Amino acid sequence: MAVKGLKTKDKHIHSLAKLTGGPSNILYHKEDLIAYDCDGFTIHKHLPKAVVFPKNTEEVAALVKYCSENQLPFLARGAGTGLSGGAIPINGEIIISLVKMKKLISIDLENRRAVVEPGFVNLKLTNSIADKGYYYAPDPSSQYCCTIGGNVAENAGGAHCLKYGVTTNHILGLEVVLPGGEIIEIGKNGIPDSPGYDLLGLITGSEGTLGIVTKITVRILKNPESKQTVLAYFDSVSDGSGAVSDIISAGIVPAALEMMDKTAIEGVEAAAFPVGHPKDIEAVLLIEVDGISAGIDEQITQILEVCTKWNVREVKAAESEAERARWWANRKTGFGAMGAISPDYLVQDGVIPRSRLPEVLEKINQISNESGLRIANIFHAGDGNLHPLVLFDSRIPGQTEAALKAGSACLQVCAEVGGTITGEHGVGIEKREEMRFVFTDEEILAQTKVREVFNPDNLLNAGKLFPSPGRCAEVKKEMKAAGL
Amino acid sequence: MAVKGLKTKDKHIHSLAKLTGGPSNILYHKEDLIAYDCDGFTIHKHLPKAVVFPKNTEEVAALVKYCSENQLPFLARGAGTGLSGGAIPINGEIIISLVKMKKLISIDLENRRAVVEPGFVNLKLTNSIADKGYYYAPDPSSQYCCTIGGNVAENAGGAHCLKYGVTTNHILGLEVVLPGGEIIEIGKNGIPDSPGYDLLGLITGSEGTLGIVTKITVRILKNPESKQTVLAYFDSVSDGSGAVSDIISAGIVPAALEMMDKTAIEGVEAAAFPVGHPKDIEAVLLIEVDGISAGIDEQITQILEVCTKWNVREVKAAESEAERARWWANRKTGFGAMGAISPDYLVQDGVIPRSRLPEVLEKINQISNESGLRIANIFHAGDGNLHPLVLFDSRIPGQTEAALKAGSACLQVCAEVGGTITGEHGVGIEKREEMRFVFTDEEILAQTKVREVFNPDNLLNAGKLFPSPGRCAEVKKEMKAAGL
Repeated sequence: MAVKGLKTKDKHIHSLAKLTGGPSNILYHKEDLIAYDCDGFTIHKHLPKAVVFPKNTEEVAALVKYCSENQLPFLARGAGTGLSGGAIPINGEIIISLVKMKKLISIDLENRRAVVEPGFVNLKLTNSIADKGYYYAPDPSSQYCCTIGGNVAENAGGAHCLKYGVTTNHILGLEVVLPGGEIIEIGKNGIPDSPGYDLLGLITGSEGTLGIVTKITVRILKNPESKQTVLAYFDSVSDGSGAVSDIISAGIVPAALEMMDKTAIEGVEAAAFPVGHPKDIEAVLLIEVDGISAGIDEQITQILEVCTKWNVREVKAAESEAERARWWANRKTGFGAMGAISPDYLVQDGVIPRSRLPEVLEKINQISNESGLRIANIFHAGDGNLHPLVLFDSRIPGQTEAALKAGSACLQVCAEVGGTITGEHGVGIEKREEMRFVFTDEEILAQTKVREVFNPDNLLNAGKLFPSPGRCAEVKKEMKAAGL
Repeated sequence: MAVKGLKTKDKHIHSLAKLTGGPSNILYHKEDLIAYDCDGFTIHKHLPKAVVFPKNTEEVAALVKYCSENQLPFLARGAGTGLSGGAIPINGEIIISLVKMKKLISIDLENRRAVVEPGFVNLKLTNSIADKGYYYAPDPSSQYCCTIGGNVAENAGGAHCLKYGVTTNHILGLEVVLPGGEIIEIGKNGIPDSPGYDLLGLITGSEGTLGIVTKITVRILKNPESKQTVLAYFDSVSDGSGAVSDIISAGIVPAALEMMDKTAIEGVEAAAFPVGHPKDIEAVLLIEVDGISAGIDEQITQILEVCTKWNVREVKAAESEAERARWWANRKTGFGAMGAISPDYLVQDGVIPRSRLPEVLEKINQISNESGLRIANIFHAGDGNLHPLVLFDSRIPGQTEAALKAGSACLQVCAEVGGTITGEHGVGIEKREEMRFVFTDEEILAQTKVREVFNPDNLLNAGKLFPSPGRCAEVKKEMKAAGL
């Protein structure tokens, strides 16, 4: 049953077009597909077989069922801002794009929750409820364009997650299309800590390998009565790190506690939102506290005392909302700003125990020296989430490989001090092999067994999140032989 | 190979004794086993085959492996304070008691975490770090005796979970013995939001059906600088409920926001810790706020304004730490206090959207009238977690059944208004059938499939958490036939 207006004889394209209501909801020409050959992780590229744009849950379920019945690999994609390659169609997948499912379905201020479709853009939620004094807390730097569905897949973080938690802490319910096409609802009625197994937590952060989320109930928060934002400049990274540790030890939980090093400062000052950071400074802290007005001044006073103890050169508080917004734009566009000082950059995402910060930065410095590549550091210092940015030039033969190697070495350092290999960007295809830095074969096996329950044919987003099967398959055989 | 000192010829008892280092670490005589025939849910009782007391992870793994190889049903038990029957050996299980694994392994104040064995008592953790200004947040009413391992199994809550979250929000890492005897570590290095699937969340609250937790890394918090506690008395439950809603709507997140109705007040005043609540009052709120000192007075002022708006009869603030402690003892021993006004009571545990409180209480009142049984209500009002306490006399024929029916009806009301059937006590054997109030067959099937991955022979704690298999088995067959 051919669909009119399609310029292909591929029967699957005709069938998929039919399931989404016609030729305007499918892309299949090579020139259209190029825009979908990677996401925010641009080092690997692969063309999808097609991109389809369902408009509702039923269409998603029908598409998934079709792919499953015809053994066609498929994956879901939001805004494509992911940084670890989770939406790259490395097996020539059918991409199920959720950008047309972008409705704000309902808002329930009294019970503090909202229901959205997966293609709804993160920042739009806060914008929709700001006039009533509410907001949605997880704030990845891409929040002006990334989708909440993508945030669920990657368990996205953000600068303000130190105090308020990452995406998983704000998801109350999900409607999910399983890889066989079944539609299930988890986190029933948006009530936290539902009976039964915590499938909500399992799906959140599963990087699109267990199902496709089609409806999301999120927690919304009341705006804090007041906030204050401070910049503190230090002549050494270890002084800055000491201040971070002591602020947390003092029992203060800032809404955000961000740090940038000298190379990062050079980048952000050369890019779109310079704020006049001193050029010779080694580290800047961006500290924000929020809450009841009466408590803010007391916390700021304590923070200033800590900074003074750690030889701060200069501290200043934002004098207006406009100044505060500019400081945040300077920080939030920090990754992209590296483009102003380097043709290419690779962003990494490690986590370490806060107390090991100075030592880890010293080791990253060594990696930089050994690789001959500059590494800028931007990090959510309060929760020990580092973003080393390896600067390189892909036109120079060997530099891409050197950058990847340096990035991996940074993660190994994080794992070695008792940390881990991703805080908020996910594993995707980028850090598959680095999973071995933190998991034993048995532990990886336990996880892939969970994947098999939901995704038995591994048609959904195969090849992501776990190391290449070679070694694991052997382990599996051995374990089976041993009766495990 | 017989073990000396055992007065039985049962070869399994000898083998199990050997695996735990001798006859002093196993119970197998009927008179010893009686103490283990139920937990805090005393309506169903069943004798275990034996109770073993391993001293370390390796012994647990060896016991589990032995049970698995010999197809002996088994389950884990902490202090036996669970309220839904999760530790009742309904299949004559071998009980693996974790009370001898009760070490506080390490404390890392700088990175805010502690590692404990599963038999470590909840309150002891706070007592161990209180002098340094820290505490462990989840505070079930049984915290003076319940174990952290049991808290993980049930995802235990507590009065202060409104602000600080339930157990799952405080667990950073687990060592788990899987039902085949493999030892895995999840939540590597105690770093939150680890890469890979969130098995940490999956195991937490799985009610002892997926594995046995042998080591736990928990988050510890800095004591709030200051706290203030208030009692507010209302002449109607709906006024009290209105105040609860408005306090939350005002953007205040109290550390605790508890409510008791008239019958509950009658009970607590007749029991061990009376505090002089007026006898003719319909509802009392116990409200605690904590944080930076400067913010406390402002919040209390706002709370008093809200209470006044809702016609509060009397409000008083605790004038000393001793008075505060007594108010909390009055509330925390509330369930047991029902023993002072009724020979038996059944505690239920439903959750509702906060805004539906007055309507739900009215329906519970109808259930009370229809059943002829008094129902007291004690609840974590701030997060909509109700504990209807059905008062009955098991010596009167039919009253136990009537109480069970009334308890189930209360849960049905919770589910009908968009809530759920357990907030913190778990499903266990008590609420298995009530799972159908909130989950479809497909949704239950998705969960039991996850159980099969970890617990393929269903030897570990079988018959808990999910409805009796009858109907589900049929669904499964149908789904299989349909190729799902």
